[in-house]
Amino acid sequence: MFSQKLENVRKMTPLIHNITNYVTVNDCANVLLACGGSPIMSDDIDDVYDIATICGGLNINIGTLNRNTIPSMFMAGKRANELNHPVILDPVGVGASKLRTQTAYKLLDEVKFSVIRGNISEIKALAFGSGSTKGVDADVADEVNSENLETTIQFAKEFSKKTGAIIAITGAMDIVADYKYAYVIKNGHTMMSKVTGTGCMLTAMIAAYIVAEKSVGNDMLEAVAAATCAMGLCGEIAHSRLTKRDGNATYRNYIIDEIYNLDGKTLDEGAKYEMQ
Amino acid sequence: MFSQKLENVRKMTPLIHNITNYVTVNDCANVLLACGGSPIMSDDIDDVYDIATICGGLNINIGTLNRNTIPSMFMAGKRANELNHPVILDPVGVGASKLRTQTAYKLLDEVKFSVIRGNISEIKALAFGSGSTKGVDADVADEVNSENLETTIQFAKEFSKKTGAIIAITGAMDIVADYKYAYVIKNGHTMMSKVTGTGCMLTAMIAAYIVAEKSVGNDMLEAVAAATCAMGLCGEIAHSRLTKRDGNATYRNYIIDEIYNLDGKTLDEGAKYEMQ
Amino acid sequence: MFSQKLENVRKMTPLIHNITNYVTVNDCANVLLACGGSPIMSDDIDDVYDIATICGGLNINIGTLNRNTIPSMFMAGKRANELNHPVILDPVGVGASKLRTQTAYKLLDEVKFSVIRGNISEIKALAFGSGSTKGVDADVADEVNSENLETTIQFAKEFSKKTGAIIAITGAMDIVADYKYAYVIKNGHTMMSKVTGTGCMLTAMIAAYIVAEKSVGNDMLEAVAAATCAMGLCGEIAHSRLTKRDGNATYRNYIIDEIYNLDGKTLDEGAKYEMQ
Repeated sequence: MFSQKLENVRKMTPLIHNITNYVTVNDCANVLLACGGSPIMSDDIDDVYDIATICGGLNINIGTLNRNTIPSMFMAGKRANELNHPVILDPVGVGASKLRTQTAYKLLDEVKFSVIRGNISEIKALAFGSGSTKGVDADVADEVNSENLETTIQFAKEFSKKTGAIIAITGAMDIVADYKYAYVIKNGHTMMSKVTGTGCMLTAMIAAYIVAEKSVGNDMLEAVAAATCAMGLCGEIAHSRLTKRDGNATYRNYIIDEIYNLDGKTLDEGAKYEMQ
Repeated sequence: MFSQKLENVRKMTPLIHNITNYVTVNDCANVLLACGGSPIMSDDIDDVYDIATICGGLNINIGTLNRNTIPSMFMAGKRANELNHPVILDPVGVGASKLRTQTAYKLLDEVKFSVIRGNISEIKALAFGSGSTKGVDADVADEVNSENLETTIQFAKEFSKKTGAIIAITGAMDIVADYKYAYVIKNGHTMMSKVTGTGCMLTAMIAAYIVAEKSVGNDMLEAVAAATCAMGLCGEIAHSRLTKRDGNATYRNYIIDEIYNLDGKTLDEGAKYEMQ
Repeated sequence: MFSQKLENVRKMTPLIHNITNYVTVNDCANVLLACGGSPIMSDDIDDVYDIATICGGLNINIGTLNRNTIPSMFMAGKRANELNHPVILDPVGVGASKLRTQTAYKLLDEVKFSVIRGNISEIKALAFGSGSTKGVDADVADEVNSENLETTIQFAKEFSKKTGAIIAITGAMDIVADYKYAYVIKNGHTMMSKVTGTGCMLTAMIAAYIVAEKSVGNDMLEAVAAATCAMGLCGEIAHSRLTKRDGNATYRNYIIDEIYNLDGKTLDEGAKYEMQ
C-alpha cells in the first residue's frame, strides 16, 4: 500500500542531506518539509562528512555541480555508503557536458546508489554514454510512449541490474524499476514540465520515502513508486485548482501545497499504475 | 512602541549586506523588501569589503557555509565592526558539524555581533559546545516551555553578557534578551516550522530593524523584539488566510505578503509579549 | 509587431545558458519556462564551454559573482561569441564594488554583448565609471524622468554605439536603444521594485527573445523592446489581480503567471511605447 509509505515518512521525519543545485533548492527544502521529512543542505568538503553522518540519507543532484561540490558528492556518498544510508542520484543534464557525464559515471563507479532518478534522456546518457539530452529536459526523440514502453522497461530493469539501484525514469509516463519488477505510472500533468525543478523535487521526496521505508520495511521499490505516484497525483490535483489567470508560478506553489496536504487514502485512490 | 521600530525601517530603507545560504536567500531578499529594507547579497572575498562599506549592516548566516564564503564572513564582519555597523549572526545548524561549530566560535571570537538569532538547540550549541541539534531544526529535548522558561531566560541573559550581543532564541516561545532584560514573545504559529527559512527571514528582518534603529534611537533590544513579534504575528495572520487546500508553499507567500502589508497599529495590537 | 516576437519564443523554445546569481535564479528559470524558453544554469569553468555550445544564447548576470564564476563568464562569453550566439549582460550592482565594476569593464572588453540591461545607475556606472549605485537599486538622483529623458536617450544611443550592444535601461520609464533608434516604454508598475529580481527576470526573458529573433528575423531592437514591454505589461496585469491582503510574494507569483499566459494580442494592445 502506497499509503503506508506516505505515512511512514510523516511518522519518522527522515533527515535528508542534500547536495543539490541552487536553482531549485528552496523548492526541494519545502517539498521535504511538505511530505514530512526534514532537509539539510551542505556541500562543503569540510562539512559533508559530519552532515552525512547525522542524516538518514543523501540526495546528490548535479544540476549546478562545480569543482568545490563534486569532491563533496564523493565524500558524502562514500560516508553514507559506510553507514548503509540510502543515497539517491539525480543526474541533471548528464549528456549535456563532459563534466556532467564524467562526474555521473564516476559517481556510479565509486558510490552505491539506492535510486537513480532522471528523465529518459538523462538515464539513457547515463547507461549508454549517448542519448540526446536537450539541456536539462528530455529530448522528444527519447520520449517513452506505448510503442517503446516494453523496450524501455527492459532497459530500466537491465540498468537496475547493472547499477544495483532502483531506476526511476520520469516523464509523461514514469517507469520505476528494479532488476525484476517495474511500475508503470501514469499520474502527472504535462504542465509540470513548465515548472522548474519538479524532477529535483521528486528526487528529494523519494529520498525521504526510502529513508523512512528502510527503517520499517523492505519494499524500497514500492516506496519509490509511491513517491513518484504522489508527485504526479499532486501535480494533477494542483492543476485542477488553477484558474484561467494562474500560470507556472502558482502551479509550483499548489504542487507543494498538495504534497503538504496529501494523505494516504487520497494517494491510494488516485495512484494510476500497473506492474510489469 | 514596536510600531515606531517598524516605521523607522519603512522610513529609512536600510541597505543590508547578506552573506547567506542559497536555500532561503530569495525569501530573505523579498522579506527585506517587504519590511522596507533593501537587500544586497555578496559573498566573494574580493567583493565583501566594498559592499560591507556601503551597506548599513551585515547579516551573516552560515546555512550553506563553505571554504570560499567563510573568509568573506570574517572580512565583512570586521569591516562592518570598523564602521560600527550592526552585525547579526544566524548560526544555522551549529552543533551539527565541526565546521559549523568551529566557524561560529571563531566568528564570535573575531567579530562583534549586535544580535545572534537561532533556535534553542543552536544557541545552546553556541554557548556550551553541546546541545543536541537535529540538523537545522531544534531538538524536542531542548524545547523552551513553561517549566524551563526561567532557566532559559537566565541562560539567554548570561550568554548576552558574555557575547555582548542581544540573544534571540526563537521557537514556539521566543526569548529576546540582553544581559539585563528579556522579552518573552508568544506570537507565531507552529506551521511556520514547515516553511523552510522562516528563521533566516527573521534574521534578515532583524538586521533591517536594528540598522534603522541605530540611526534614530538606542533601544536595540526593543527593535529586535519588535521584529520578532512582527514575524510571529505575520505568521499568525497569514495562517488565518489559508484555505483547506493551501499548504506550506502558499503559507510562505502569505507570510511575506503580511510582512509587506504590516503596519504599526496592527503590530502594536497583535504583539503578545511580556518583559522579564 | 511585438506579438510576433513573443510567438517566436513560444515556437522555438530557445535554450538559454545562464550564469546568474543564486538570489533570483529560480525565478529566472521559471520566467524562461513561462515565456516559452528553456533554461539551463551552469557556472563551473569545466562545464560552461560545453553548455554554451549546446545553448542558443547566454545570459551573464553578475549579481553574486565570485572568483569561481568570473572566469566561467569569460569562457562562456567567448565561446558564445565564437558561435555567434547572442550574449546578454546584467551588470547587477556595478559601481557598488571594485570587483563588480572591474569585472563588468573587462567583460565589455573581451566579450561582445548583444544586449546590456540594467537600471540607470548601473548603466551610468558602466559607461562613466561613476553613477551613484545604491546597492542593487537605482539611485533616486539618477532617475529617468521627462526632464532628462532626451539626454538619457542620447546617452543610451551613444553607449550602444560604443559597445555595439542594444542598451536596455529599465525603471519607471524604460529606454531600449541601439545607436540609431530608441524605444521609450511606459509599461510597468512601481511595486515591481518591491519584488527581488524583476530586473534579472527581464534579462533572462530578453535572452529568450533575442535568441528566437536571431533565427527568424533581424529586428533585435524590436525583440528587446517587446520583451521589455511584456515584462512591464505583466507587472501591470499582475498588479490588477492583487487583493488588499496580497503583498510582494504573491505579486512575484502573479507576474510569472502573467508571463506564462501572455499572448501576442494582449501584448500588442497593452504595449505603451514610442520611438525616438
